[in-house]
Amino acid sequence: MVTIEVGLGGRSYPIHVGAGLLDRADILAAAIPGRDVLVVTNTVVAPLYLERVCNTLSGYRVRQLVLPDGEAHKTLETAGRILDALVQGGYARDATVLALGGGVVGDMAGFAAACYQRGIAFLQAPTTLLAQVDSAVGGKTAVNHPQGKNLIGAFHQPIAVIADTDTLNTLSDRELRAGLAEVIKYGAILDAPFLDWLQENMSALLAREPQALAQAIRRCCELKARVVEQDEKEHGCRAILNLGHTFAHAIETLCGYGQWLHGEAVAAGMVMAADFSVATGLLDPASARRLREIIQQAGLPVSPPVLLPAAFMQAMSHDKKVLAGRLRLVLLRKLGEAAISDDYPSEELARFVASALQEVNH
Amino acid sequence: MVTIEVGLGGRSYPIHVGAGLLDRADILAAAIPGRDVLVVTNTVVAPLYLERVCNTLSGYRVRQLVLPDGEAHKTLETAGRILDALVQGGYARDATVLALGGGVVGDMAGFAAACYQRGIAFLQAPTTLLAQVDSAVGGKTAVNHPQGKNLIGAFHQPIAVIADTDTLNTLSDRELRAGLAEVIKYGAILDAPFLDWLQENMSALLAREPQALAQAIRRCCELKARVVEQDEKEHGCRAILNLGHTFAHAIETLCGYGQWLHGEAVAAGMVMAADFSVATGLLDPASARRLREIIQQAGLPVSPPVLLPAAFMQAMSHDKKVLAGRLRLVLLRKLGEAAISDDYPSEELARFVASALQEVNH
Repeated sequence: MVTIEVGLGGRSYPIHVGAGLLDRADILAAAIPGRDVLVVTNTVVAPLYLERVCNTLSGYRVRQLVLPDGEAHKTLETAGRILDALVQGGYARDATVLALGGGVVGDMAGFAAACYQRGIAFLQAPTTLLAQVDSAVGGKTAVNHPQGKNLIGAFHQPIAVIADTDTLNTLSDRELRAGLAEVIKYGAILDAPFLDWLQENMSALLAREPQALAQAIRRCCELKARVVEQDEKEHGCRAILNLGHTFAHAIETLCGYGQWLHGEAVAAGMVMAADFSVATGLLDPASARRLREIIQQAGLPVSPPVLLPAAFMQAMSHDKKVLAGRLRLVLLRKLGEAAISDDYPSEELARFVASALQEVNH
Repeated sequence: MVTIEVGLGGRSYPIHVGAGLLDRADILAAAIPGRDVLVVTNTVVAPLYLERVCNTLSGYRVRQLVLPDGEAHKTLETAGRILDALVQGGYARDATVLALGGGVVGDMAGFAAACYQRGIAFLQAPTTLLAQVDSAVGGKTAVNHPQGKNLIGAFHQPIAVIADTDTLNTLSDRELRAGLAEVIKYGAILDAPFLDWLQENMSALLAREPQALAQAIRRCCELKARVVEQDEKEHGCRAILNLGHTFAHAIETLCGYGQWLHGEAVAAGMVMAADFSVATGLLDPASARRLREIIQQAGLPVSPPVLLPAAFMQAMSHDKKVLAGRLRLVLLRKLGEAAISDDYPSEELARFVASALQEVNH
């Protein structure tokens, strides 16, 4: 097991990464403040890990809530069901919500924990690669609005993240690849040598070699922890973690939540962001081509689906990175270095989106 | 106009108290960050003040949302309507939610502002005495759950509180008195000389003499600001602001939200808290009698309605001040000094509630 500390003063917490952690009562006990725990999970994860986690929590008063699976259910209504369960269980301010699952479960359970009695403890036990490297770390919680992804949410840091790498063995290949999209993102925005390492180790990662996976998760968590420590509430540099996400959110919103996995949309979105970086003269074409190759190597999509440019632009305008009417985009200056920019002609973005979607149609 | 500063580092803000402030474009402009403002109000306040506020905001892009009036509508669903309006208006992170109304409007609009894009600016323009002295200050936002008051919410400080004392002229007598309950509370928990002043000036307050009202509002805001500065998120001493509220929330929940005004329930709840303080030997009976007299002087109820003791105890157990299975109560050591206690025999509380409700039944 390795432990990465996220240093946020009174809201600091550990990220534990290792095999078999869901069985470690000592690690859970070190994090959980009171005696009441609501385990929130979904119909896919419950049969695999719920009983095990409940056994590990034998000293606690545990209730379970099993939600339907998938991004389509990441709504205010489903968050309301978690809140209902907390009220009906008579949970007090010293209770803990434990999210057992992927990013959707973590985002919703975290949002409910943030709102219940104005904030109770929240423990992340991510079971997908995407959640372990990205969504479980950093305190962003949210649900979707029909018109835009993650528009309703809260910053609510977990009390600990417990990433049991054994859980990756039950992941579908598609989910594994979706997680690799966020892994590649960290290299693209912050760490060129890590991108080299990823290219060398991509087949080991796709074959789920435990050491390679553990090393990738550790590096991503280290990188994310440093960014979150600098800018917890995304007033500035934290936005670079959203490379490709503005394009991705438009894809996810327009295709219907859950048709494209978040990581798949991020993969296509990163290629768009890199290509737009080239179009605005920020990035050299060879770097954009290399990023595309790495994404392809991971078996991820490198183009958006067939969509109307006007609808795509409209969906992008609901992005949270809009300020004073300008959409700020995360672009690349080179591989390993991101730039946040609203300093591009809007017509150029419209033209770029139209041409990117055009290519798909042909 | 007087201005009281709430000192919370980067989240500090002014409370402006005075006549005619809703017409002061300069004061609104000093607070509002961007160009987009969603004014949230209700069907009672809209015909009185909405046009005026919109005129004052003539330099901004303003949208309005008029909600139904009353505590019964303070739900997650209604907060969802505010969020819908923000999404449909295409509001970005630099937008502002302006709450124009009483505590219900402020609590809900504040909660929606806390959740929209994980938190946007929120301006309080309270139009009731209760909101001006209490609910608009301090950053507590919430909606009710059918089983408990304010169980779903967030700490989200406003960017400013603009208390136009002229708006109190359109308040019903009942609403005015409900506000006085919270005014009396401040004296009871923190400021014995203020209680003396209240007794002397109660008829002036009930007659809405502007100077008396302004002085009362100013004193309450000063007292609340000091408490919130010490303990923003109610880990400790802030709980004293809830004197009578645990009993009050049980009354409000069981009678159906809105049957008793919040201030009315707080009045009866404070009498119960004082009587229970006497029962546990903390407070002398003469002080409890005096508090009851002041509450009566304000024309407020001093007893709970007819309710079943078991249901009352059950409703109290959903209070947010439960920790490790113990209900912490705000009690009085003397007039002007509160004590937070879970150090009483539970049977004694059950006995006390049964006997307090019994007296009503006879």
